[in-house]
This record gives sequence, structure tokens and C-alpha cells, in this order.
Amino acid sequence: MADSRFFKCNGPFKAHELADIASAELVGDKDALITDVASIDQATSEQVSFLDNRKYVKAFTKSKAGLCLVHPEVADKAPEGMSLLVTAEPYMGYAKIASTFYPVTFPKAKISERANISETATIADGVIIEAGAYVGENVIIGKGTWIKSNAVLGDGVTVGENCIIHPNVTLSHTIISNGVTIHPGCQIGQDGFGFASGAQGHVRIPQLGRVLIGDHVNIGAATTIDRGAGPDTVIGAGTQIDNIVQIGHNVQIGMGCVIVSHVGISGSTKLGNFVVVGGQAGVAGHLEIGDSVVIAAKAGVMRNVEAGQTVGGFPAIPQWKWLRQVGMIEKLTRGKK
Amino acid sequence: MADSRFFKCNGPFKAHELADIASAELVGDKDALITDVASIDQATSEQVSFLDNRKYVKAFTKSKAGLCLVHPEVADKAPEGMSLLVTAEPYMGYAKIASTFYPVTFPKAKISERANISETATIADGVIIEAGAYVGENVIIGKGTWIKSNAVLGDGVTVGENCIIHPNVTLSHTIISNGVTIHPGCQIGQDGFGFASGAQGHVRIPQLGRVLIGDHVNIGAATTIDRGAGPDTVIGAGTQIDNIVQIGHNVQIGMGCVIVSHVGISGSTKLGNFVVVGGQAGVAGHLEIGDSVVIAAKAGVMRNVEAGQTVGGFPAIPQWKWLRQVGMIEKLTRGKK
Amino acid sequence: MADSRFFKCNGPFKAHELADIASAELVGDKDALITDVASIDQATSEQVSFLDNRKYVKAFTKSKAGLCLVHPEVADKAPEGMSLLVTAEPYMGYAKIASTFYPVTFPKAKISERANISETATIADGVIIEAGAYVGENVIIGKGTWIKSNAVLGDGVTVGENCIIHPNVTLSHTIISNGVTIHPGCQIGQDGFGFASGAQGHVRIPQLGRVLIGDHVNIGAATTIDRGAGPDTVIGAGTQIDNIVQIGHNVQIGMGCVIVSHVGISGSTKLGNFVVVGGQAGVAGHLEIGDSVVIAAKAGVMRNVEAGQTVGGFPAIPQWKWLRQVGMIEKLTRGKK
Repeated sequence: MADSRFFKCNGPFKAHELADIASAELVGDKDALITDVASIDQATSEQVSFLDNRKYVKAFTKSKAGLCLVHPEVADKAPEGMSLLVTAEPYMGYAKIASTFYPVTFPKAKISERANISETATIADGVIIEAGAYVGENVIIGKGTWIKSNAVLGDGVTVGENCIIHPNVTLSHTIISNGVTIHPGCQIGQDGFGFASGAQGHVRIPQLGRVLIGDHVNIGAATTIDRGAGPDTVIGAGTQIDNIVQIGHNVQIGMGCVIVSHVGISGSTKLGNFVVVGGQAGVAGHLEIGDSVVIAAKAGVMRNVEAGQTVGGFPAIPQWKWLRQVGMIEKLTRGKK
Repeated sequence: MADSRFFKCNGPFKAHELADIASAELVGDKDALITDVASIDQATSEQVSFLDNRKYVKAFTKSKAGLCLVHPEVADKAPEGMSLLVTAEPYMGYAKIASTFYPVTFPKAKISERANISETATIADGVIIEAGAYVGENVIIGKGTWIKSNAVLGDGVTVGENCIIHPNVTLSHTIISNGVTIHPGCQIGQDGFGFASGAQGHVRIPQLGRVLIGDHVNIGAATTIDRGAGPDTVIGAGTQIDNIVQIGHNVQIGMGCVIVSHVGISGSTKLGNFVVVGGQAGVAGHLEIGDSVVIAAKAGVMRNVEAGQTVGGFPAIPQWKWLRQVGMIEKLTRGKK
Repeated sequence: MADSRFFKCNGPFKAHELADIASAELVGDKDALITDVASIDQATSEQVSFLDNRKYVKAFTKSKAGLCLVHPEVADKAPEGMSLLVTAEPYMGYAKIASTFYPVTFPKAKISERANISETATIADGVIIEAGAYVGENVIIGKGTWIKSNAVLGDGVTVGENCIIHPNVTLSHTIISNGVTIHPGCQIGQDGFGFASGAQGHVRIPQLGRVLIGDHVNIGAATTIDRGAGPDTVIGAGTQIDNIVQIGHNVQIGMGCVIVSHVGISGSTKLGNFVVVGGQAGVAGHLEIGDSVVIAAKAGVMRNVEAGQTVGGFPAIPQWKWLRQVGMIEKLTRGKK
């Protein structure tokens, strides 16, 4: 059971309700009462779990979970007495079921007296603004959005509906759509790193663009996104960005991308849709990365990458080639001391 | 036109005024009225643009910009009807012209009642301190400086004139000169990562130095700069530091350096003047990096580097050698499967 | 002498007192009065220094320090007139002596009226809470702990005794033990990066665990630690984490580890005790890293590492092998242009 100091469990639910939520086929008692989610090895007869990885099949055969999400191919390995929710996507089913037991719950609408809110701000119904938050001139905040303590929304910023802006975030020059979550300590909309260099030193170029964030984007803690120099910096709908990521000015990121922590995307580079960028990778500027590209962890991408490719290494090349190089280098040094 | 929610355009200006600002030679109507800046492909007849990169010469020949900064060598390619500002430094000229159309404008002096300011702080004329900012004991803030919401200036910190300290910055044990910008979420002056390790665990060494930041330094978002252990950590005048950079204790950085995002400079390393460090590079501790060195992106510098060298790879070697190694490794694995 | 705007020197002390503190053998006048610490090359006759590195033996022979911590093996190189504190661990001795001259001093207990503190919070004696700090529902803060300006403690968070939570930190879903320091701008306890991906996009998995931080842990600036997905994310006692580190969900870190800046530890990986991870290294998920492993800077660890091993490179291999590979690659390209 999740720590009740931090999590409130919304169960119980009947097995058939969970089958509907997960779009899964129920094999077992439809009225069985399920009180919570749990992992395969921890779950009891009143809890629901999931099997998503062949590595855990053995644990699955010994599991005491009363109900379990499984792929059709492994359903026959279920232990005696376990009811099943059979689905081709057990992990997705688990995401939906766990979100039903533990939904993100917003507090009641409330504007703290100790928030610092400009008179020119427009705040819709159902908005929560906590003490210490700062809301600048002409800011617009949409229905149901939650601005947490000590977040700072600079002049003119717009935030859509049902967003969560966590503490210690700074937003400036930014327009955010609906259902967006910005995790704590993010810094979004500041100057891009642009300057002209000459005998008199480095002279900053005014960055005259904005940051545009699409629906249902989720941005990790302490991530930084610079506004555009004239074009905008754009994050497409549904994209998931992890912690400590840097997005440079004028970058355009498509829909449904996944960008893991410590990644840097240099200025003016364009990512298509559903691109995955592994942890600590870097992408040089002014590049085009096609749809569904996978960039391996720690890669250094210096050239355009065509749609559907998987690249790795530095300079990044097709991943299979990089693995060959690694193998070749190992052979060359094998046995020598 | 830049989004007027965020940017206020200070035009129009006459062509000859812009020629003066950019120190460029005007070819065309000196009284032509220019209302805004724009990119080569977007600009209209009342806007000024610039050509800085041979890649865009084609777009230049078709551009509708009324006025354009160009290098003498490409001036002859200008389309009919376009006036020119001819200069050997078109990008620098653009920086100055764009800054004239869109200057950084400070608000009127104002100390918010909802800032938390120690009575022992000394605050000069023209200072702006926003709600939620914290100003500790004996802090000194110079003329015209702007402390934004929720920034925290610890006891004894000194900030010079005409600085901007963005939201959610923490400064401690730090002395800042004039004209410095610290972007949101920077953490400056905290303990360096110093400790003695033994049977009883890790015992922290008191870090008895400070951070000294020179005139016109610009530090990116969520960058961290540790104070010195006894010596100071020093950032030289005019240096530009990007986001998510880590500067370790006792590091000395010269003047006019450029440090790109995700770089780590380990403790006690010394960079000369005009050093450029590419994104995600790392420099080991106790090293000396000479003037005008260029460290390529993702490099790992383990030895001193002499002035004027360009190094790359890990361990870092002269960049041309690293490129040779990359080529050699590619040859070795070519055609094999 | 350390800058008195920032540091208060608690001396003087007699030589024999310092010998006790450092568990060192005094050779010289036991009543000599020592006023401060200093480096070997700067110290005067009333100051104590230390020699820890053969590189500085020459400076040691010319040093004017009145008292110096030295290893027995180099004691005979001491200049005329210098008293010695002879110990096998001169750096540890210096840590303790410097901490005696410059202890971390907490202010008097005080709860600022301008802190935002929930009525349901439980705050022990001796606690300091500065203006702008936010303390959520049912938070528990132990004796003597110092919550600095603009830090945010989310609902249910527990902090032990004698901790320091620096400005602009966000804590949520976190339980902290005693004597812990969290440096400015840390973000701890937010959602782990977990989601199921399918035709409808990425659906976040509720992260139902917490972050547990052991006694005397020290976490650097702008570091991010995600809470667990159901298990907890755990940081063992005495571990030292540098700036801009990312710790993924469900990670378990043992006791006394050292994690240098820009490191990323991916989800569900387990580090034993006394593991050292060099700057900018990355460790893939679901791995086991044994006790006392050393991971070199910039390494990319893709497999389990047995206790006591030193690994480097990407993919990480035994460090001696990686050095061989570096040498081999250099030979292959030597002399070619």
C-alpha cells in the first residue's frame, strides 16, 4: 500500500470495472473486489498486478496477486486461482488502472492571499494558486490549473487548463496549452544563448521568440528551455521530457517524443514526431531528425538522421555500426597487456 | 513582429541612424524609415535583416527586406531595391541594431513590500526588488539593479550596478560586478564538493572562499557555481556561460570565455581568456587551459592544453587527430557485418 | 583569512587542542597559539596548514606555516621552526581542524512570520524557518533544522534533526533522516519518468513510492532525485552527491557513496556501499553495482559491475582495458595524416 501520508487510494474496484478501464478481457470472477495495485512479487489476493517483461515470468508463476494484467502469450503460465486481465498491452493497462486507484487529485480552487498576483492577470475558475507563487502582468491562467508555491509566471505568460506548475519553476515568454505538467525547478522562456563575438567581446542578440508548449506535455525537474531568437521554440503535444534536459533556442520538437535526462538539443534543430533521445545524448544545432528516430544514450548526433533510424556513438552512426566498432576495438586489444 | 505581449518594439529608426549604430556603410536612402528587424526570408520593405552565412545567399537574393546588413564580399548579390549596410561584421551589426529596436528595459525603481529585505541591507537608487525576493543581512545592491521574484541573496552578498538577477536564483558568498545577468534557477556560492574520506566516512572541508563574477558576465539558467575552498572561484569579465553548467570550487575562468550547456569544469582548473568549451564537454581538475583554446563538444580534457589549440574526444587530443581516429575506426569496420 | 562578510573565525586554539581534534601527534610547542587555517604557500607563523600531496612537498619545505599536518613519511622535510601535527591522514585532520575554526553555525531558532506554514505541520524546538519558505500539510521538522528562504516542503514531508535545506529546494514525497544538507535548487521527490507508450500516446504511470534519505547525506545544488514507482528511491547514510546529478526512480544507493556532478543513474539500478561515480558518467537502469566500485568520469555503464572493480569508457569495461584501447587507437593513427 502506498504511504498514506503521500497517496490516497481510491479503491476498491470490481474486477470487471478494471477490465473496462484497461480494455482487457477478464478471465475470472467479475465481481471480485480489488483494493490496490502492487508488484508481481508483493501483491496479495485483493490486489492487481501486471506482467510486462519475460524476466519476471518466474515470479509471475509464484505470484499471489488476485488479479493480473498479462499478454495472451503468457496467460497459460498463470498460477492457480489468479484471475487475469488479458491484453496485448499489459503495461498500458496497468498505467490506466493505477491512475484509477491513484488519480492525480487537484485541491479545491483557492487563491492564496500570500501569492503575489498582478491585478492585470486573468485567472479562470477552479484555479489553485499557492502561497509564494508570483503571477505577473497580463498573465492568463486557464480553468482548473494549479500553480504551486514559489513558482514564478512572468509578464504575459499564458497557461491553459488543468495544468500543474510545480514549485520553483520560472516561466517567461511562454504559452502553454492544456493538461501540461511542469515539474519543479524548470526554467522556461529565458534568453537563448545567442551573441555576436568581435573585438569588443560578446554582444547578446535579443531573443525575440517565445516557447510554445503543446497539450499534455510533461517536462521534468530542473529542465531548461530557451525561447526562440525570432522563431519560437516549440514542444509538440504529448512529448515527455525528463529532468536536467537543455532545449536550445528555436528548437522544434514534434509530438509524442521522449527525451531522457541530461540530453542537450542545440539551437535550431528540428525533431520529428515520436523521436526517442537516450540519456546524456547531445544533438548538434541546425539538424533535422526524422520521425521515430531513436538516438541511443550518450550519443553525439552531428548530422541529419532519416526517419526510423536508430543511431548511437559519437559521432553518431547507425547503432548496428557502432556496436560493430565497439566489438572491433575490443578484438584489437584482446589478450594484450 | 515580435509578440507584443512579451516585446516592445522601439522603432522606427532611419536607415542612417542604424548605419551609425552598426558602424556600417549605408548604400541607399539614408532617410528610409525602418520599423523592425526580421529574418532574411520574412523581412518586408520596412524591415532590416542581415546576411551572415553563405548558406543563406540564395534566400538573400530573393529577400524583400528594405535594408540588410551584409559583408562587402556579397554586397553585389543584393536584389534590386534593397538598401545595404555594408560591414565586415554583419552579425555584430545586427546584434546592435536588434538591441536598439528591442533594448533590455528595466522597470521603474521599486521595492516591493512583499520582498523580504534585511534592515542591514544597503540598496542603492534605482533598484527594483520584486515580491518574494529575499535579501539577507548586509547585502549590498548597486544602482539600477533588478532583483526578480523569489531570487535569494544570502548574507553579505554584493551585487553591482545594472545587474539582472532572475527568479529562483540563489546567491551566497558571492561578489558580482556590474552589468551582470544571472538567468533563472542559477545556484551560485554554495559549498564546493570537498571532503576528506576515511574510516569514519566523508568529512566535509569548510569552503572558505567566495565566487567573484566580473563585469558583463552572463550566466545561463540552472547553472551551478561553487565557491572556493580558500582561494575564490572566479569568472572573468565578459564571459558567457550557458544553462546547466557546473563550475567547481577554485576554478578560474578568464575574460570573454564561452561555455556551452552541460559542461563541467572540475575544481582548481584555470581557463585563460577567450576559451570556448563545447556542449557536454568535461574538464578534469587542476588543469591549465590556455588562451583561445577551443574544446569540442563532448570532449573529456585530462591534460593541460596550450593556448590556441583545438582539442576533442575523450581523452581529449588535437581535434584533427581525433577526426583521424574516427575515420580510422570507421575504415576498420567498413563492409564487415 | 576568510572574508569576514561570509565567515566567522572561531580561533584561536592552542596547538595541543588542534592535535587532539585531529588525532595527530604534536611535535613542537603545545601552547603555541594558532589563529587560522591557510594553504601551504600562504600560511604565516600563527596559522596551521596541511601537506597532503607529494606535488606540494617543495612548497612545504619553504612554507612559513607555524603548524602543519603531515604524514610521518614527509615529516623530516619540514622547514626549521615549523611545528608538526603528524598523522597518517593529514587531509582528514585538516577537515576536522578547519571545521573547528569555521564550524557550520546555525542561527537562533526563529520561525519567520513571512514563512508560509500549514497549521497541521509539526515543528520541533530549535528550528529556523526563513521568510518565503513553504511548509505543507502534516510536514514534520525535527529539532534544530534550518529551512532557508523560498524552500518548499510538500505535504507529508518529514525532515529529521539538524538538517539544512537551502533556498529554492523543492521536497515532496520525501523522508529525510538527521544531519542532512540539501544544497540550493535541488528538486527531490517528484514523479519518476515512467509511462506506458501506445497508440494513444504516452500515459504516465503513477509513481507510488517515496525518496528516503539517510543520516549525514549531502546533496549538491540543482540535483534531481525522483521518487520510486512503488518501491522507494533510497540514498544511504553518509553518501555525498554533487551538483546537477539525476537519480532515477527506484534507485538504491548504499552508504558512503560519492557521486560527482552531471552523473545520471537510471531507474531501478542499485549501488552498493562506497561506490564512486566520476563526473558526467551514466549508469543504465536495472543494474547492480557492487561495493567500492569506481566508475571513471564520462563512463557509460551498461552491465553489472562486481564489487571492487574500476571501470571506464562507453560501454564501460575494466579501466585498464579502456586505457589499452585508447593506447591502441592512438598507435593505429600515429604518424598518419
